[in-house]
Parts: sequence; structure tokens; C-alpha cells
Amino acid sequence: MTTYPVQVVIFGASGDLTARKLIPALVDNASRGAFQTPVQIIGVARHPKTSESWRAELATWLSDDQRAAWDAFAPNVFYTQADVDDPASIEELAADLDELAGEHAATCGRLFYLALAPRLFAPTVERLAHIGMLTSDPLRAEGWRRVVIEKPFGTDLATAQWLNIVLGRHLREDQIYRIDHYLGKESVQNLLAFRFTNAIWEPLWNRAHVDSVEISVCEAVGVADRGGYYDHAGALRDMVQNHLMQLLALVAMEAPTSMSPEAVRSEKVKVLRALVPFTSPEDVWRDVVRAQYVDPSENPGYLQAPGVAEDSATETFVAIRAQIHNWRWNGVPFLLRTGKSLRKRYTEIILRFRAPPVDLFTAPTTSVLAGSFCSMQPNELVMRIQPDEGIRIRFLVKQPGPGNVMRLASLGFDYKDVFDERSPEAYERLLLDAIEGNPTLFIRGDEAEAAWRFCDAIHAAWDAPDAPPPGRYEAGSTGPEEADSLFRGCEGIWGHGGV
Amino acid sequence: MTTYPVQVVIFGASGDLTARKLIPALVDNASRGAFQTPVQIIGVARHPKTSESWRAELATWLSDDQRAAWDAFAPNVFYTQADVDDPASIEELAADLDELAGEHAATCGRLFYLALAPRLFAPTVERLAHIGMLTSDPLRAEGWRRVVIEKPFGTDLATAQWLNIVLGRHLREDQIYRIDHYLGKESVQNLLAFRFTNAIWEPLWNRAHVDSVEISVCEAVGVADRGGYYDHAGALRDMVQNHLMQLLALVAMEAPTSMSPEAVRSEKVKVLRALVPFTSPEDVWRDVVRAQYVDPSENPGYLQAPGVAEDSATETFVAIRAQIHNWRWNGVPFLLRTGKSLRKRYTEIILRFRAPPVDLFTAPTTSVLAGSFCSMQPNELVMRIQPDEGIRIRFLVKQPGPGNVMRLASLGFDYKDVFDERSPEAYERLLLDAIEGNPTLFIRGDEAEAAWRFCDAIHAAWDAPDAPPPGRYEAGSTGPEEADSLFRGCEGIWGHGGV
Repeated sequence: MTTYPVQVVIFGASGDLTARKLIPALVDNASRGAFQTPVQIIGVARHPKTSESWRAELATWLSDDQRAAWDAFAPNVFYTQADVDDPASIEELAADLDELAGEHAATCGRLFYLALAPRLFAPTVERLAHIGMLTSDPLRAEGWRRVVIEKPFGTDLATAQWLNIVLGRHLREDQIYRIDHYLGKESVQNLLAFRFTNAIWEPLWNRAHVDSVEISVCEAVGVADRGGYYDHAGALRDMVQNHLMQLLALVAMEAPTSMSPEAVRSEKVKVLRALVPFTSPEDVWRDVVRAQYVDPSENPGYLQAPGVAEDSATETFVAIRAQIHNWRWNGVPFLLRTGKSLRKRYTEIILRFRAPPVDLFTAPTTSVLAGSFCSMQPNELVMRIQPDEGIRIRFLVKQPGPGNVMRLASLGFDYKDVFDERSPEAYERLLLDAIEGNPTLFIRGDEAEAAWRFCDAIHAAWDAPDAPPPGRYEAGSTGPEEADSLFRGCEGIWGHGGV
Repeated sequence: MTTYPVQVVIFGASGDLTARKLIPALVDNASRGAFQTPVQIIGVARHPKTSESWRAELATWLSDDQRAAWDAFAPNVFYTQADVDDPASIEELAADLDELAGEHAATCGRLFYLALAPRLFAPTVERLAHIGMLTSDPLRAEGWRRVVIEKPFGTDLATAQWLNIVLGRHLREDQIYRIDHYLGKESVQNLLAFRFTNAIWEPLWNRAHVDSVEISVCEAVGVADRGGYYDHAGALRDMVQNHLMQLLALVAMEAPTSMSPEAVRSEKVKVLRALVPFTSPEDVWRDVVRAQYVDPSENPGYLQAPGVAEDSATETFVAIRAQIHNWRWNGVPFLLRTGKSLRKRYTEIILRFRAPPVDLFTAPTTSVLAGSFCSMQPNELVMRIQPDEGIRIRFLVKQPGPGNVMRLASLGFDYKDVFDERSPEAYERLLLDAIEGNPTLFIRGDEAEAAWRFCDAIHAAWDAPDAPPPGRYEAGSTGPEEADSLFRGCEGIWGHGGV
């Protein structure tokens, strides 16, 4: 239990993320008494601003519910003008932090949150390290120094490796908190709990019983005004390398020996390293589908969005048939899909099981009946991450009446039906974990690299001069039809986020 | 498809069963067009009565919904006075049936339904056989003769064997339909469909993953005015030998090679024969609990019920820890329970699975929290037969918020939420099956004998002079506490029919 105070130092204090996510998450933590120790927030940015004016600015972003807690919390929120390119201003920052900490300057823990443009991650860490601000004793609980790195963590394997090297020069791995807010979602955490506290799943959770695994992260919005950024990223970098790879790791990992950060993350990285890399462009063209949305109405499609090159080949949709080369999963396709401007916003993981080996219930007298006859439809376990978090098992039941007509039904569990408690926001959980020194839900350096290694091979094929151009799909649709081809030899087809 | 008419000949036409169950079931079948062929009903009893007066009598038992269908159906309903002890009257009956069949006398199928006192089963069959009324050609579809035998089928192994021998002298096994109305329930039939069309269950359905199986058939009513009958039967004969043994066979059987009557019934009898017989009184005293209800209020307990001997040792409650000696189930206790005057009327089959081998989520910081913490609670699959037919899986989910506090939740499926169709009544289904010549849901002779063999060993121990007397339980309770001892070494305890 922390008994020394904590300072959360947010670089990029003027940014959207700080006002929209970080401060509200800290206020929510404070209001439900989650902090075991006094917490000060120090915003850092280049704009001249007073603590008072910053507080007034932040307050406008809070909900009515948060406003009451804010009045109690605001006196702990401070603003310091500083420029990471200016060594003098960083030294002033250090003095300011000590002064705010007062008698606890020597013992207080400090969380440096880099809500900055990615190109500033390395220079900021170097600048802070240069004057000893990141130095801490791993054997002492107090006086800790941790750094939260926002995404994206590199743009490919080489940049991620370089960033890991720079960070490693100044920080121990236990001081580095690479954030992926997807891991902070309750329903993502529930995935591990669901798998490992319910003994009925483990016997089924392997290649003997699973036919395929689908991971779909569908967005309904287009790129809007983020075209300038997005056109250099694309769905593979923006979504697959982080969120989808993390979901895949959680669903496919072996049971860890404990829930300790290193036990969990070591199992995750094993899965990511077992992903079969694409070794030829032909494999990528067969097993990966990329596409851009177009809009037949007057709304702009992707190529017409502001900031997007008119001949852009950047994908707004990607679907991948991935394979995991280990005892548990070899031969089971992991069907990953993400895209913008799709019909519906939802994230779902679906285990599709093998069909029964024999069909006892198809008799000539019943098979001619209603279209609902489907005795061989395989079972599915649907884990809905968002919205409407829940678990669903699809299975067959006998339709009442004579004959053996089977119909698809579903056993459902919705989080909101069972729990009155508000689920904490992802940032709320992750900030608290970082303050408490629990990196389980943060990405380790080797995980980031393994995920990039898999994605880089896809990029390489796409960048080849003879690569087929991205396909097209209508905005508001369920994506390009070509993606269906990835189900070759499998039961079923992409889910549609329905019940 | 039957193209010849069918005559349903009900012996015991004046009885309760005929008016309350059989006729309404036949009317319901007719009103939903289930009969593929014209059906005549001929009631047979000793009372002098006309077809008209019998019809008027039957009509009073029908619901308003059935009344409309009855008007169309009633002209096919006839009454014939006959006495099975009087050969002449049976010959007259034969002539009456031929006359009613008219031009179809040679081809019509005949279902003889023995809704009679059990002592009359054998004499009636012998009398009918004596004048050739049960003779049919197994190679011809038309002109069939079948006999439905009501329960109880014998009162012990010897009487059941004797009855099978008598029946076998005059009928082929394919002509004998031993009824257990429990098997006609939709939810009982769904058990087989649920097990064998959903591939996720088979890998779990065995001793490696199941800790125990509970089969509870709880009744809320007492013996009421049936004490005279019941005091000679008891719960073991009245419920266990038939209903519970059949449920056990369905839940424990191997997958049949087809849904044909012989394939299904051969698998069921294998299970019943694999039941480990009790070989010593001590085993029975340890693994079987019997008790009588008492009532502390002014209502009479069992011993005060009319027709019950004042020193009766007849059990109104019985619980059995049974074992099945085969590869799938050896070592898994099958915990059977049935009783009268219990708190709640319900029938449920529960598979309790083993707990996870390791508990990843119990940490000192979470185990001190709310009583809802229970990370090692094992999964349960609850199959509710009645009322509110449905399927439920009990499992653990993570409670929202920091820490890993697990809470018990349930994935539920209720028949009534999915199906608009009225579920046919048990007798409706079974009468139709008997008319159509499908004995899948009827008990084969060897099944009845195997079930008696298991029960007889229990009776033998109870009848010993040094046997402990039956225990006592309060009417309206969940039964005697002694029954809990049967869970020794198992996860959990008897269910209480809750959600």
C-alpha cells in the first residue's frame, strides 16, 4: 500500500486526450476513493497558462456528475509551462515538482504521462533522464518514477525497436507503461477471468474443438478530420498492430501460472511470437484483404476526406486470416477484421466450434420442413467487448412439437443486467494501475515488437510495385465481399454483431 | 405415411386418466391436424353408457379452446360396454370395432390403450389375444395392432419379468408400448437434442470434467387422497424406478448411432445395466436416504393421511447416491432425489463440473472483500424440465472495477422466450407416436427390468428387520438434512430450483 504521495505529470496538457480522457479518469478515481494516497496532477505544455485558467478549462469537459468531485479535486491540479526542447525549462519543472511535493519531495512517486506526438516520446524521456528525473531505486517502494507512453508505439518494427532501445537506456522495463486503452476495458479483462475461472472452457479451447476464431473491431465512423494522420497509418497500424493483436493474445494464450504482470505478459508474447509470419506476397494477397470505403451518396468517401492523398492506397479496412503455430492452435484460422465506416460499431470475439461429427436429427421427414431446420449448425461462443458487453453461446434446441426440428437459440449474459456498478472507463483503470505499479494491462516491449513483426510482413507485400490495389466497399456496409474468402474451409462466416 | 384409418381403443374409459389426459390429448392432436389418417376413439368399460352420454361426460373436462375442436371430433368417439373378464363381451367388442371400421375392418390399425388397474394388464392382453385381436403381420404396414401399457409396470423385478413374459407370449416387442409420460415432455426430448446437436457438450460430458450429476424431481403436494395406493408403493417405486431412472438414462447414455427407437433404447438400457447394484444393507444405509413428511401445523403429515397405515415405513422422500460403472462415468456420483410435500415443485438435472485446477484470482487483497467473492465455485449446467423449461449455465464473471473479484452469474435460455408454439402435452406426443408406430419414447421391456433390479436391492435392505426406520422432514421444507451427506467429497450441494 502506497503511503507516500503521488504526482501525475502530464506532458501534452493542452491536448484533447488530457481534457477528454485523462483528467475525467483521474477525477472519477478520486471521487470513488480509489487513491490510497494524496495525488497531485501537474499539467505540462508550452502554452502560457495558470493553474487557475487550466482548471477552468478542464472543468468545461466534465459531466455534471463529475463536477461535484471536481470541486474537491481541483486544488490538487496544477499547470506548469515547459518545453521539452528547452533544458532550462525542464530543470524549472523539476524544481516546481519538488516544491509542490513539499516535505515529500524525496519520497513521492512520479508518473510521467507522455500524451505527446510520438516523435516527442524519445526526446522527452532523454531530457527527463538527463537531469536525473527518471532515476529510482527498484528495491525501494517510495520515490518511484514511471513513464506512460501513449500509442502508437513506433510505426513499424524498426522504429519500435529503436524506441525500445532509447527507453531502455534510461528506464528499466518495470518503469515503462506502454498503453493500449483496449486493455483497460472491463470486458477485455473479463476475458481472462472468464477463461480461467470457469473450468468448462479449457477442455474446448483448442484445435480439437474450435473451428475458427473471429476477432472483429468494427467502427461506424469514417476518418472525419483525421485524414492527415490516418493516411500515413491505415487500419493495420492504427488498429491491428495494437488492439487486435492484444485481443488475439488474450484469447489464444496459455493459462498463466499466476496473474502477475510478468506471468500474463510472458504468455501473451508467446502467442504473438507463434503467429505464422507471411513470407511471400502471394500469401498476403490470399490471406489478407485490404479496402477503402467509398460513398455512393454525396458524402465523401475515404479518398475525398480532407488530408487524404487523392491516389492514396491506405486501407480503411483490413481482414487477415492468421495462423498460430503451436500445439493448441495449429490449423485453426484466426480471422481478424477491422474497418471504418462500417454498418455498425461493435467489437466481438467469436469462437466457432466444430460441427457435431454425426447428424442424428436430419431425417427425410423433417428436413423438408421450415427453413429454420439447421441441425448441423455449429456452436458459437460470442464475447462482446463493446457496446453492450456480454457473453453469448449459440446452440441448437428442439422446436416444440413432433419431429426433431432444431432451431438456433442463444444463452445470453449481459453485464448490465447483472452489475449495478458503473464499469470504470479504460483510462480510469489504467491510470490507477500505473499509479499502483501494476503493469499487467500494459504492453511489454517484446509484445510490441512481435506484433510489428507480423504486421510489417503484410506492409512489405502491400508496398511491392505489383501489389493489387486496395479493394472498395460502400460506407455503411459490412465491408468488402472479398473478406468472405478468408473463411475458406471453415464453418460459418463473419458475424454481424447481432444477438 | 398411414393411409388406412386408425382405431384407438381405450380400456378404462370411465377412469380419470381417460377424461383428464387421453381424450384432451387426442382432441388437441386432431385440432392441429396431426393425424395423417381418420381416427376413431372407442371407449371400453363395464358401466352401461351410450356414446352420446359418454361424449357429454367427456366434454365437461375440456377447456374452452378445445370445445370448438371437440364439436368436429366428437362424432368419431364411441362407447362400448364390455368386461374383460367376460369372453362373450370381448367378442362383441371385436364385432363392434369391425362394424365401426366398416370397409376398412381388414386394414385399419388398432391401438389398445390399457388405462386399467395394473392387475388387469395381463388378463386383458390374454383375452384380446385369445380371439386373435392382437394378431398382425410385422411385414405389413396396415392392419397393425399395438398395446399401450400404463404404469406401474410391475412392483418389483419379479412381477415385471412375469408381465414381460405374458406380454411376450402374445405380442412382439414392437407391439408393446410401455408408457412413462415423463418421456413425452418436450424438455425431456430436448435433452437428447441438446446433447447431440451441440458439439461443445460431448467433450465435457464425462468423468474427466463432471464432478457430480443431480437429478431432482420435487413435488409440492402430499399424498392427498391417494394414501391407499401410495402406502403400498412409496417414492422409490412411484418415481425412481420409472421417471428418475429414465432421466438418468437419457443424461448418461452414450451417443446413439441414430435416433431410431432401437438405437436410442439400446443405449439407455446399457446405462441402466451399468448402475452399480447395492450389494449390502450397509451400502444402502450409507448411500440411500428415505424419509416421511411430518407436519407440525394442524395439517396431517404422511402418517395421518387417509389410507396410510399408522405405523407405515413407506418413504415419501428418497435420495440416492448412484454410480455408473462404465468408462464415461465411473466415480461420478449420480445424486437422485424425489419427494412429496417439498417446498417447491420442479424437476431439474444439474451437471456440476469440476472446479478449475488452479485459482488464479484469489489474492490476499481481494479475498477479504464482499461475500460474493467465490472464484473457485464450479460451473453448473442446469437443465430445467419443469416448470419453466430451460437451460442455464452458471459461471463466474469479473465484477467491474479494480481487483479481480469474481461473481456467480448465469447464462440463461428459457423455452417460452424463444418459442411461440405451445409445447404439446406429454400424452399428446406419446399417443401420436404410438399411433404412428414410433416407440422411441416408450420403455422397452429390458429397460423396465434393469431399473427394477437396481431398486429391488434398495427395497431388500429397507425390508430387513434391523433396517433403520425412515427419517422425518417437515412438509414444505427442502427434505431431510441427512440427504446432504450424499454429497460427501463432491462440489456443491442439492440445488433449490432457483435461478
